[in-house]
Amino acid sequence: VDEARARLRDTFVAVRSRTLALIEPLEVEDLVVQSMPDASPARWHLAHTTWFFESFVLFPFAPGFSPFDPAFGLLFNSYYHALGERWRRPDRGLLSRPTVRRVLEYRRATDERVEALIADARDEDWPRLAERITLGLEHEEQHQELLLMDVKHLLGLNPLGPAYRPECTRPPRAAPPVQLAPLRWIEGPVGAVQIGAAGEAFAFDNEGPRHTTWLQPYALAHRLVSVGEYLAFVEDGGYRRPELWLSDGWATVEREGWEAPLYWRREQGRWSVFSLDGWGPLDATEPVAHVSYFEADAYARWAEARLPTEAEWEALAAGAPVRGNLLESGALHPRPASAEAGGLAQLFGDVWEHTRSAYSPYPGYRPPPGALGEYNGKFMSGQQVLRGGSALTPAAHVRASYRNFFHPHQRWAMQGLRLARDA
Amino acid sequence: VDEARARLRDTFVAVRSRTLALIEPLEVEDLVVQSMPDASPARWHLAHTTWFFESFVLFPFAPGFSPFDPAFGLLFNSYYHALGERWRRPDRGLLSRPTVRRVLEYRRATDERVEALIADARDEDWPRLAERITLGLEHEEQHQELLLMDVKHLLGLNPLGPAYRPECTRPPRAAPPVQLAPLRWIEGPVGAVQIGAAGEAFAFDNEGPRHTTWLQPYALAHRLVSVGEYLAFVEDGGYRRPELWLSDGWATVEREGWEAPLYWRREQGRWSVFSLDGWGPLDATEPVAHVSYFEADAYARWAEARLPTEAEWEALAAGAPVRGNLLESGALHPRPASAEAGGLAQLFGDVWEHTRSAYSPYPGYRPPPGALGEYNGKFMSGQQVLRGGSALTPAAHVRASYRNFFHPHQRWAMQGLRLARDA
Amino acid sequence: VDEARARLRDTFVAVRSRTLALIEPLEVEDLVVQSMPDASPARWHLAHTTWFFESFVLFPFAPGFSPFDPAFGLLFNSYYHALGERWRRPDRGLLSRPTVRRVLEYRRATDERVEALIADARDEDWPRLAERITLGLEHEEQHQELLLMDVKHLLGLNPLGPAYRPECTRPPRAAPPVQLAPLRWIEGPVGAVQIGAAGEAFAFDNEGPRHTTWLQPYALAHRLVSVGEYLAFVEDGGYRRPELWLSDGWATVEREGWEAPLYWRREQGRWSVFSLDGWGPLDATEPVAHVSYFEADAYARWAEARLPTEAEWEALAAGAPVRGNLLESGALHPRPASAEAGGLAQLFGDVWEHTRSAYSPYPGYRPPPGALGEYNGKFMSGQQVLRGGSALTPAAHVRASYRNFFHPHQRWAMQGLRLARDA
Amino acid sequence: VDEARARLRDTFVAVRSRTLALIEPLEVEDLVVQSMPDASPARWHLAHTTWFFESFVLFPFAPGFSPFDPAFGLLFNSYYHALGERWRRPDRGLLSRPTVRRVLEYRRATDERVEALIADARDEDWPRLAERITLGLEHEEQHQELLLMDVKHLLGLNPLGPAYRPECTRPPRAAPPVQLAPLRWIEGPVGAVQIGAAGEAFAFDNEGPRHTTWLQPYALAHRLVSVGEYLAFVEDGGYRRPELWLSDGWATVEREGWEAPLYWRREQGRWSVFSLDGWGPLDATEPVAHVSYFEADAYARWAEARLPTEAEWEALAAGAPVRGNLLESGALHPRPASAEAGGLAQLFGDVWEHTRSAYSPYPGYRPPPGALGEYNGKFMSGQQVLRGGSALTPAAHVRASYRNFFHPHQRWAMQGLRLARDA
Repeated sequence: VDEARARLRDTFVAVRSRTLALIEPLEVEDLVVQSMPDASPARWHLAHTTWFFESFVLFPFAPGFSPFDPAFGLLFNSYYHALGERWRRPDRGLLSRPTVRRVLEYRRATDERVEALIADARDEDWPRLAERITLGLEHEEQHQELLLMDVKHLLGLNPLGPAYRPECTRPPRAAPPVQLAPLRWIEGPVGAVQIGAAGEAFAFDNEGPRHTTWLQPYALAHRLVSVGEYLAFVEDGGYRRPELWLSDGWATVEREGWEAPLYWRREQGRWSVFSLDGWGPLDATEPVAHVSYFEADAYARWAEARLPTEAEWEALAAGAPVRGNLLESGALHPRPASAEAGGLAQLFGDVWEHTRSAYSPYPGYRPPPGALGEYNGKFMSGQQVLRGGSALTPAAHVRASYRNFFHPHQRWAMQGLRLARDA
Repeated sequence: VDEARARLRDTFVAVRSRTLALIEPLEVEDLVVQSMPDASPARWHLAHTTWFFESFVLFPFAPGFSPFDPAFGLLFNSYYHALGERWRRPDRGLLSRPTVRRVLEYRRATDERVEALIADARDEDWPRLAERITLGLEHEEQHQELLLMDVKHLLGLNPLGPAYRPECTRPPRAAPPVQLAPLRWIEGPVGAVQIGAAGEAFAFDNEGPRHTTWLQPYALAHRLVSVGEYLAFVEDGGYRRPELWLSDGWATVEREGWEAPLYWRREQGRWSVFSLDGWGPLDATEPVAHVSYFEADAYARWAEARLPTEAEWEALAAGAPVRGNLLESGALHPRPASAEAGGLAQLFGDVWEHTRSAYSPYPGYRPPPGALGEYNGKFMSGQQVLRGGSALTPAAHVRASYRNFFHPHQRWAMQGLRLARDA
Repeated sequence: VDEARARLRDTFVAVRSRTLALIEPLEVEDLVVQSMPDASPARWHLAHTTWFFESFVLFPFAPGFSPFDPAFGLLFNSYYHALGERWRRPDRGLLSRPTVRRVLEYRRATDERVEALIADARDEDWPRLAERITLGLEHEEQHQELLLMDVKHLLGLNPLGPAYRPECTRPPRAAPPVQLAPLRWIEGPVGAVQIGAAGEAFAFDNEGPRHTTWLQPYALAHRLVSVGEYLAFVEDGGYRRPELWLSDGWATVEREGWEAPLYWRREQGRWSVFSLDGWGPLDATEPVAHVSYFEADAYARWAEARLPTEAEWEALAAGAPVRGNLLESGALHPRPASAEAGGLAQLFGDVWEHTRSAYSPYPGYRPPPGALGEYNGKFMSGQQVLRGGSALTPAAHVRASYRNFFHPHQRWAMQGLRLARDA
Repeated sequence: VDEARARLRDTFVAVRSRTLALIEPLEVEDLVVQSMPDASPARWHLAHTTWFFESFVLFPFAPGFSPFDPAFGLLFNSYYHALGERWRRPDRGLLSRPTVRRVLEYRRATDERVEALIADARDEDWPRLAERITLGLEHEEQHQELLLMDVKHLLGLNPLGPAYRPECTRPPRAAPPVQLAPLRWIEGPVGAVQIGAAGEAFAFDNEGPRHTTWLQPYALAHRLVSVGEYLAFVEDGGYRRPELWLSDGWATVEREGWEAPLYWRREQGRWSVFSLDGWGPLDATEPVAHVSYFEADAYARWAEARLPTEAEWEALAAGAPVRGNLLESGALHPRPASAEAGGLAQLFGDVWEHTRSAYSPYPGYRPPPGALGEYNGKFMSGQQVLRGGSALTPAAHVRASYRNFFHPHQRWAMQGLRLARDA
């Protein structure tokens, strides 16, 4: 047990520290503003992840616990009805207090208490405590990605075009291949197939139970759709042809005036794209990113293919190692597929891959009891599943069974697509 | 062929006449008003179904065809982008012209031309023509149900509480059973199961292709959830307990101020309900109706059960005869389950049954080419599947493989639910 | 008194009959639809004016009065809070019942009761009763104009372009003058001037008390601004130059996409205009109509002039006879100024003339007690005064002291303008 | 001239420094957030007032001027269409950059250039330059008040209830009088009266031309309406009685759910109020503040009085010295009327006083040419005039002829009221 405690404490320190490292390049001003209702101020992420440890770790396990500030429950509860009133989500940007300084104190004080608890908890509490802390860290990793998504959105709308990090701190980029390999199609298993999380390793409740599903013959493209391929769709009038779109998708195109992916901008006939390094020219060999489900679906129709189901994706990804352009690469942006021969490229990292599967409960799914039952299950309507992680996802956070989900019109996540077809 | 032509002509006359019979109890004023964006004026249904025959039957098949009124294309096209501009759907109620009289002339003239075409079409055109006319009639039947849904909504919001039909014309109602049988659970087939439309009979494109799916052990309740059972949920605070609801569902409850199903009203502590016969007291033994997916899902959670998937439903309904309280019964309202022993009751008719299945394409699904490809496929996002037909559905229109679909917040269709559980 | 009773009864019959005459060219469908929140269905006007007699004449004066239908109070009360709940104004078009037929019965029954009351009322009640009936008739005349405005709006948005009346029933139009006379400027009185209603004749409460105001030297244009003059403003980029507009006006231009007056349409470079006779070419010599306060103000700025104050207008109109192109002419549309020499043309009729005066209480103004106090006083914020009546105003209804009022963005009234300048 | 230059430079330094002093108690976070569309982030005020000097002083007068940052024109232009594109007003809070630090550099650099220009400008430019700088300083003073209004709104909605300044820095408050004097009525001049700015001293364009107006006999209350008096209105159901309200006012009450002035809160039956010193108990003797025109008008009706016209107010204020509880007192909050005998109390300072006068041009008014013509004139619709300054207004900024204006529903300015009546 002691070793387990030491290991968990190290992980705790590492994950919590990375959140702080992520905000290092930012100004106080960047931590406060909410750029749209779907996004949150970075400061809110800092505080909310801390509140999560307070509510689900310290409150139930730390003897004599009292909250750092009783008002923070109202302010930093995201959506757990069972834990009381919440400040309205679209109004998170209306709060100038608590200051960033105070929120950092909140983090520090809470970290100390969690670390003390790791050291001091009774042995009989340890298994459940360890499980909760692990959940808190997985939760923190989700918010690390959200924080970067939200910061990108905030900086991206600013006419000054500020970059997230100074030039000197960016990782050097490998020379891109001269040309992307043409699509190859990789066939997947057929008939009764098992999917879903199993075994000892951490997984969210929505990844299980492991169960049988039935697959018809199919194939997946060996790599992601590239910017160059997507540009051909744009230039072929893709955003002006209703017959390519789902009905709700076309309504969104018209209402929002979409003409290209989020973060693309055309000026005097030349396209540029916003990344966390600022504005730059489009690179045709990179995977396309920041396209909604509606756009991915329309592109697939135009390309005479379709999106994969989540089961098709998982059946092929199941054996593959979790390796790729993830948060640890430091790129913070998708990269061109390498030319390596054989197999599926870019399965993990780069961009979350759209699937045609609505986010629904697996057969036999039951959310856990209590407030944590609100974590995943209550979002199972109106959203689509995405798979595989992105360049903003911590490597330890993703796996073949991982189910991310967004509404079909949302596109501020680093979302892209891989084509599928019936085989 | 001649007999086939005679048979189709008779069906054509019968279906088209029934639409006119449905509006007989109404005043001109009732045919003009649009009570909400989801609904259409009855006059619009009369004209749109006629435009469908003009566009998809007369235009391609009738030599020298010219439209009855060229402006009607703009006004009565519902959503076929491939066929040009359309009048905005939420503004259908802004049009006082063409008058009802003129629309009835439009129907008459178009009917004559279709009937002439049935008689005169070249034999080599006949198979495709017959297929199109059949589609037009299936389409008309869908709008017969929509017309009644929309009229009910219109009359239901009127403070005068007008009934759709005079008392004297209502079918007498059988005495209700003293008490409903308690729920029995009927198990369905397990493992690889085939679902979807197959064979010669008409089916919409979205019902196919027939394909294999995999079912875990499950059971369905032998009858629908009753008003009395749903009332217990209401009285247990069902509409005030966020933990029972999907997240988007709870947001809808709060935004819309829902406290009960649509058409329920509480005054001085007593509930009444609006039907096409006007306002009356709640009958605890009837199936509950006009509940959205969100409400059905919350009820099921409260009842410690769940909604069936569409495959589970179809697997059990596949062999059953299409019999039940459908449009032809004249009840226009769900009826209590009869006490007959054994088997699944109320599978067809009474109310459309909510499923937990999002409306998605079946494996291998491809919409037909051209404007008719817009009929079903483009709605495959954000909606849920319902099965089994209602008391407003023509009997010839429904079958085990039939997939109806609505957004999860909608409830002006005659929707109810049957519980399911893992076996 | 008997003669007074006979006279009032004749007026009552005449005014009430004219309302019915106004709807004669319409279809039932035209009477039911509400084309926008500011407008009401014609049927509503028919019923509301009747409810006014029920509530303010029969209820207080007719012994043993009971309402025709108790539910009509809810449906046809416009805005009198003192008289109970009201059906929401923007939802007047959601009601298909009561039918037009029933509303006409309501009118007939109420007319009979009012006529009986005129005959039978006690002499001591007569003065107050006569005052109330007169108010009811003035109220009815206001709704005659509103009814025509609302019908015009309804027919004007219909892509079929239906005319209000058949060609054969239109009054022949005099040949227009070859050219309009250039603007002449007529100076008004200076210094302390009396305005406001005085004396015996009927006037609304908001026209008094008569009081002194102070005028600086000024002049009014001898005629209204013409379509040709306004077109020059449009073609000079009037709707694209923010510097010509009030701030709220420019926001309206951008939000609504205004490019010309309401009912103007440009197709292939040619302008046409909708009148109650349908669509036709612009006539440059007619007064411009259906311009909001914002547009009138912007035009005046462009023309290096300004709008008159209401006191300036009244001071010059005070002596003039109420004569002009009013409802009785049958034109239902403004007409070119006649070439007659001298004096102010088009003071009454043609179009309501915008003034730069906000609609405020006159010094010493007090609304009457009770529900009738809500008639005028409570609208004294955010609106502008218009003067002089239009081609839709009954001649007996308007006078020099009459104050009409609309919000500065509204333009479905027959509104135009006359320029003013400092002298 | 040299002395004039020195004097203006001193004023320039003093006014600009006071803006910085006002933000001293705030955190960076407080300077960035926009709490509602009507308000602006404090940082925006800092930058916009600086941009004003750049655009209207440096650009036209400083030889070889180039802007500090060319992008700032887009970001910090408030509403001058003549000066190019502007960032949408409701989105001012979406910008995290430029940082506060950078904006303070912008101020510093601009101040240096203006001071240099004061020293170096050619004598022939001096009069016009001095006029422009003076206008820039008056403009800055307006934004000093706006900044405090906006900061109050921001802090006031925060559940943490933060105070603007620490307790220790607040000026001590004189003991309030035991009881307010009952209202006395002071009569004003009657007949032809001159109002409007005249003479050499600075005044905004909208304060002139000086002109004659005509007053009927009237009297003003000798002091402002107090919190205690207003509370009686609230407790008499003032916010639940539509008959007391203007029609648009009542619609606002219902839409916004108003139950009391802005910044009042009732908890467990006790009222508290938010000031720049945080939350505290209501003080019945203070003037009521933060009531909209609609509320002031309803209160006056309830009190059987009315609001003054702006001419009535100015006619009585014309001779009085500009003295009172203004920004320099440091109170930042209205104070009870002192018991001093005779005359009108609280004319200047404490709260802006509502008038029943719509904000309209005076006879003969003409806005100046060019972009500065947009300063005042284009807001002359839909707003009401307020007079007398508030506890947030710099003393040098207000005078008897000063016309402030807000929309009738707005109440985040420090607005109160004084009753008037016909004499």
